[in-house]
Amino acid sequence: MSQAVSTYEGWYVYHDFRKIDWNKWKSINPSEREQMIQELLETIQKWSSVENNRKGSFGQYAILGHKADLLFVHLRPTIDELNEVKLQFDKLDFADVTSTPYSFTSVVELSSYTIPPGTDPFSDPAFRERLEPILPKTQYVCFYPMNKRRLGDDNWYMLSVEERRKMMKSHGMIGRSYAGRVRQIITGAIGFDDWEWGVSLFSDDPLTFKKLVTEMRFDEVSARFGEFGPFYVGCRLTSDGLTSLLSDNIK
Amino acid sequence: MSQAVSTYEGWYVYHDFRKIDWNKWKSINPSEREQMIQELLETIQKWSSVENNRKGSFGQYAILGHKADLLFVHLRPTIDELNEVKLQFDKLDFADVTSTPYSFTSVVELSSYTIPPGTDPFSDPAFRERLEPILPKTQYVCFYPMNKRRLGDDNWYMLSVEERRKMMKSHGMIGRSYAGRVRQIITGAIGFDDWEWGVSLFSDDPLTFKKLVTEMRFDEVSARFGEFGPFYVGCRLTSDGLTSLLSDNIK
Amino acid sequence: MSQAVSTYEGWYVYHDFRKIDWNKWKSINPSEREQMIQELLETIQKWSSVENNRKGSFGQYAILGHKADLLFVHLRPTIDELNEVKLQFDKLDFADVTSTPYSFTSVVELSSYTIPPGTDPFSDPAFRERLEPILPKTQYVCFYPMNKRRLGDDNWYMLSVEERRKMMKSHGMIGRSYAGRVRQIITGAIGFDDWEWGVSLFSDDPLTFKKLVTEMRFDEVSARFGEFGPFYVGCRLTSDGLTSLLSDNIK
Amino acid sequence: MSQAVSTYEGWYVYHDFRKIDWNKWKSINPSEREQMIQELLETIQKWSSVENNRKGSFGQYAILGHKADLLFVHLRPTIDELNEVKLQFDKLDFADVTSTPYSFTSVVELSSYTIPPGTDPFSDPAFRERLEPILPKTQYVCFYPMNKRRLGDDNWYMLSVEERRKMMKSHGMIGRSYAGRVRQIITGAIGFDDWEWGVSLFSDDPLTFKKLVTEMRFDEVSARFGEFGPFYVGCRLTSDGLTSLLSDNIK
Amino acid sequence: MSQAVSTYEGWYVYHDFRKIDWNKWKSINPSEREQMIQELLETIQKWSSVENNRKGSFGQYAILGHKADLLFVHLRPTIDELNEVKLQFDKLDFADVTSTPYSFTSVVELSSYTIPPGTDPFSDPAFRERLEPILPKTQYVCFYPMNKRRLGDDNWYMLSVEERRKMMKSHGMIGRSYAGRVRQIITGAIGFDDWEWGVSLFSDDPLTFKKLVTEMRFDEVSARFGEFGPFYVGCRLTSDGLTSLLSDNIK
Repeated sequence: MSQAVSTYEGWYVYHDFRKIDWNKWKSINPSEREQMIQELLETIQKWSSVENNRKGSFGQYAILGHKADLLFVHLRPTIDELNEVKLQFDKLDFADVTSTPYSFTSVVELSSYTIPPGTDPFSDPAFRERLEPILPKTQYVCFYPMNKRRLGDDNWYMLSVEERRKMMKSHGMIGRSYAGRVRQIITGAIGFDDWEWGVSLFSDDPLTFKKLVTEMRFDEVSARFGEFGPFYVGCRLTSDGLTSLLSDNIK
Repeated sequence: MSQAVSTYEGWYVYHDFRKIDWNKWKSINPSEREQMIQELLETIQKWSSVENNRKGSFGQYAILGHKADLLFVHLRPTIDELNEVKLQFDKLDFADVTSTPYSFTSVVELSSYTIPPGTDPFSDPAFRERLEPILPKTQYVCFYPMNKRRLGDDNWYMLSVEERRKMMKSHGMIGRSYAGRVRQIITGAIGFDDWEWGVSLFSDDPLTFKKLVTEMRFDEVSARFGEFGPFYVGCRLTSDGLTSLLSDNIK
Repeated sequence: MSQAVSTYEGWYVYHDFRKIDWNKWKSINPSEREQMIQELLETIQKWSSVENNRKGSFGQYAILGHKADLLFVHLRPTIDELNEVKLQFDKLDFADVTSTPYSFTSVVELSSYTIPPGTDPFSDPAFRERLEPILPKTQYVCFYPMNKRRLGDDNWYMLSVEERRKMMKSHGMIGRSYAGRVRQIITGAIGFDDWEWGVSLFSDDPLTFKKLVTEMRFDEVSARFGEFGPFYVGCRLTSDGLTSLLSDNIK
Repeated sequence: MSQAVSTYEGWYVYHDFRKIDWNKWKSINPSEREQMIQELLETIQKWSSVENNRKGSFGQYAILGHKADLLFVHLRPTIDELNEVKLQFDKLDFADVTSTPYSFTSVVELSSYTIPPGTDPFSDPAFRERLEPILPKTQYVCFYPMNKRRLGDDNWYMLSVEERRKMMKSHGMIGRSYAGRVRQIITGAIGFDDWEWGVSLFSDDPLTFKKLVTEMRFDEVSARFGEFGPFYVGCRLTSDGLTSLLSDNIK
Repeated sequence: MSQAVSTYEGWYVYHDFRKIDWNKWKSINPSEREQMIQELLETIQKWSSVENNRKGSFGQYAILGHKADLLFVHLRPTIDELNEVKLQFDKLDFADVTSTPYSFTSVVELSSYTIPPGTDPFSDPAFRERLEPILPKTQYVCFYPMNKRRLGDDNWYMLSVEERRKMMKSHGMIGRSYAGRVRQIITGAIGFDDWEWGVSLFSDDPLTFKKLVTEMRFDEVSARFGEFGPFYVGCRLTSDGLTSLLSDNIK
């Protein structure tokens, strides 16, 4: 019989990575560009407003490196809303100067490894906030997808619940030792995307991303069982920051 | 001697994933766009009509994420018809604003692991419906291709029929425990496409995709022997839904 | 000392996969398109004519899926002729609406596993026809490249000649049980292309591709040692069929 | 408990690889090209000036091979500055004739394997210069990213600190034997980019890159645990050199 | 301590693979095309002239398959000259109708496995010619990059010098048995490119490439330790041959 532990799921999450075609953007005349930014900001305003009545959350980030320029993160109660925001973006004039090198579709997840037995996450406000989280307003974000390995003797899915629980507990303790410095949101993607989980880290000091991920990598659960996809690191953008990014120093 | 178990094959299946070039689409004038949608809908109408006299089945979906925007699924008695519908699509004006990032060619398959000995699937109406299935009209779809692993001690194809049958039976029991919540169609692709099987799941609650695939992953047959390709999740589109997707909020 | 068994080589083979840029094709005016098809058909006529005096063979196929639309297969006595036909195609006007997502360069091969000792394949007409084969005019084709694995204990190239011969014999018996239903042409590509062999299957029933490849996969030589590349399946095209594919239902 | 050793981090580093679209560049009229080069050189001048008051470092290189044409390396105290220089480049007119096939985001790192216990790297000027290094002005550069392997018995992250320290010491001795001939800067990328480390080598004789990397590869830490990404080798460019590269022999 | 054996390096080598955009080439008017060929031939003349006073070597080939159309090989005493020839090509008008799908940067290498102890390769004319070789003027060329494996028990870099020497000797004997039929040039790329070595084979009979590589693959050093990249096979082009390739049958 299958040895899956129960998980609790909250909001669905869409990571929408965009690369800007700067050449095309610069070739548009300034007033039209201005208008496209306005339209984008209005849509973003609408997306952000879901946080007001806890109907979801939204964040935007400038991503380092060649893999992407911008990241828009949406949390919503249904997968249909995620599809809708994807289409809303694509229909913006601004979308025409972007391409989508990557995305990630998942759902906020708490596994019963980390939940005391007998708890009902949806009635406990603290757990509910973890399942339906407002994105932390920290200065930096780190995102990466990952799998649990199934290779020879290092097969996570062939371990007993007890072995897994013990390792996840040790893993959780490392995470907890960074409390106050790094917040992490784990999302499950089995059945939705190519990797099994997405990990989002939030901090005001990007070095803590490196410290935390490194420390965890020496922990057995990552050392033997972690398989990691691409890593993205970025800086949170306010509306003004996004406007600057798109306007400053462009002739 | 080879230890293959017999399989029964039904309709051929073509998964046609399409990505929309929104920039190009938006640059076309509204009346021409309208016309292109009409032509697309008429073709879709023709494709859907095969369900009336059980000459095949057809479904269309909005796919989440950057990997594709639309998925068209065709089931037909012959591979020639699949090639024909591929060409029919490519010759539509609408096809010019799309690209084909992925596709999957396979055939509906029942393996004798799951069929009582002595059964003739083609004379038993219940089995026949599984071999020549009408696509469920659920709200959500999940598709992924997969292989059975052949790696060191985890070599599915070196196991005895008995070992495989035992594991497949346990696997099937998990699937059956989701009866009523998830329907699954297994298609075989050995000799036709790069992965050995395609799995299509249908449900009105996308969370059940995650629950089912996760539970199965802890089952030995997946844990030790499953190798998974890209995952796609989407929302079923009616003709109106497709029209909205292509028309709403476009200037 | 190296344990290679001797092989006999016949004609060189070039698999030329092409994808059609339908948008571009449709944008060309009908009379010009007509002319481009005529020029293409004349070249194909020339290519086919090599079969008349057994100076080679030629086949053309409509390929399913997004990986390619057309496949042209050339068999010729020299590699220089293969390079020439590649260039002949590229210089056609029709080539301008195609791209080349894949190709495979190899040579027809018979290994001494399957040849009675003391045979001179080139003086025995039956063997000669296998080394210099005319492509079967069946309705369907299946092509895939493959390697023999060299991984840990599953290292084909570290086995003794006897072990390999025994396994290849069992493998050959499966192939033979499909005689009359599937014809197969094995080509060697070591030193010419990225995979070690190319396998071409020909049949009037595409299901036999699935049945044969599946049965072989459970045979030790494939189960433990086979590594498979992309699979392509297609329908043979007559000149009329190719003309229809390019002309029908195009405005 | 996790067995990570402490590391010391210095400046953040951005490797920005660019490929030139020569066709596009040549199609621009000479005076405009001249102007674009001037603007580029002024920006480079600004980037280089950070070395004057040790607020960072900058280097530019012509890269061999098809993977890239130019490499710009930035060292800065904050990750925000790296994002800024990325955007500064993208907004230059010259950027419009380039694409970004690769980049690498990391931070200069000293691990405690190589630091005597009780040292405070930030108060010791020698260590500080290693954490906040001015890029050597050698004629050649070599860059490659790497991981430490976690595979079966070769799992770096499951070794004890003592085993790792012993191997790193032997590894460091090889490096030291090249002192005066090759300088190396190790940067950590865990949490920032897809590989765990970036290695930059600087020398006036490119053969020493080959000699050093080869010698290290036979050392247990690389032989058993090193996984290497793409290698880039290049020649340092002065402003005049960059101008020549972009101007000479262009009509 | 590291167990590297000493190697001797000669000329640096640049393999420059080019794909022709035939559509673009054909769209240029004939007299301009003629002029572009002339300019290309003059540059090639200059590149070839290095052979006159043994300052390097040059070869050009038509490559089969979709991976490339042309291959230009440059051998030069310095890496700077390789960068220069790369740029010289890119600045030609002809370069605008080509793209660079692949390249390989390396240096001619003799390992001490194959050199009698006490030899100084640079004073022995025979060895010097192997380190600074003029490319054989055979009709066919074969090129592939390769690594020595480091995987579990098959870790080349963990073997003793004696084990490696013994295996390399056996390997060399196979190569020697092809003397007169195939010439091979081994180049080292550690620190320069993504694979550790490049192998170039030259022959007047392309079948010998297949025979030699196959025979070696059954030798332990390849069977257990060889990892092979893409294979390229091509036909040598004279200036007339190159002109024909670019001119014949183009309207």
